[in-house]
Amino acid sequence: MTVDKLRAAIRDVPDFPKKGILFKDITPVIDDPALFRLAVDTLADRHKDSRIAKVCAVEARGFIFAAAVAYKLGAGMVPIRKKGKLPYKTIEASYDLEYGSATLQMHVDALKKGERVLLIDDLLATGGTAAATAQMIEKLGAEIVEIEFLIELAFLKGREKLTRYKVFAPISFE
Amino acid sequence: MTVDKLRAAIRDVPDFPKKGILFKDITPVIDDPALFRLAVDTLADRHKDSRIAKVCAVEARGFIFAAAVAYKLGAGMVPIRKKGKLPYKTIEASYDLEYGSATLQMHVDALKKGERVLLIDDLLATGGTAAATAQMIEKLGAEIVEIEFLIELAFLKGREKLTRYKVFAPISFE
Repeated sequence: MTVDKLRAAIRDVPDFPKKGILFKDITPVIDDPALFRLAVDTLADRHKDSRIAKVCAVEARGFIFAAAVAYKLGAGMVPIRKKGKLPYKTIEASYDLEYGSATLQMHVDALKKGERVLLIDDLLATGGTAAATAQMIEKLGAEIVEIEFLIELAFLKGREKLTRYKVFAPISFE
Repeated sequence: MTVDKLRAAIRDVPDFPKKGILFKDITPVIDDPALFRLAVDTLADRHKDSRIAKVCAVEARGFIFAAAVAYKLGAGMVPIRKKGKLPYKTIEASYDLEYGSATLQMHVDALKKGERVLLIDDLLATGGTAAATAQMIEKLGAEIVEIEFLIELAFLKGREKLTRYKVFAPISFE
């Protein structure tokens, strides 16, 4: 089974979350046993010899792939959350939204200096979330081995915000 | 390594999310490779012969355990989200909070009639979330094989809202 099967299963939902946006719904990939396995393996297997210590992800959809990849690679998983959701001491980073900005936090003791890290999210759009997250990971002294997305919306040019990193996205929409 | 290691790693954070609450922080379990593996295996291995088709979970921490358990069992994973987050047609259920109420949604096509389902969350508190979620799962005609939590706050008596179901929680705080 190839990655084309994943692409074919992604569902277009027009006008979500607002008029004019064509939303890429990945729930048909996640809730199908064979497709979910394929998606996780596609992200995990290329790193089976990468000595990954931690897989980091931003809530909420990112947690799904990151947790399964971390489990498969024998790594830990680090949840990065919207401001105010993590209970312990945090560092934070903000990024711009269409209107205003948002702030993400991670626990100060989530990563150790020199740890090899994968950052995983379901979708690369403008790259703002990933860039802010990568900044926090590096502030804690960890090394970003790769940033992985299941899907890339290439027309939004998110990679331009991530030129310092290796970026992998098996499914790209032009 | 036993479940006691998990219990020992859970971090008490006083006065989170508000004064007087002693929050059970599970991030030290998730971000440690051996403890994360142990937590996932503890939830998954008892169901390796249960023919589970789908693992359902409510955002956001629930996604972490559910995704890894689903991967390990060869099942699909069904994300249940706060109202307005899922893009496709949904069913919904509400539950009471201390002040007001909250509404959860799941996609109408996330489960098929007769599918065998695990419902997983990180923590059983009052049981309101799990009861509302179980109601949605049954509305779609699926069968709840068990509801699993990593942690149970037994003094909140959440099991009393879930008497119709099998409930498993390896770590209990009195």
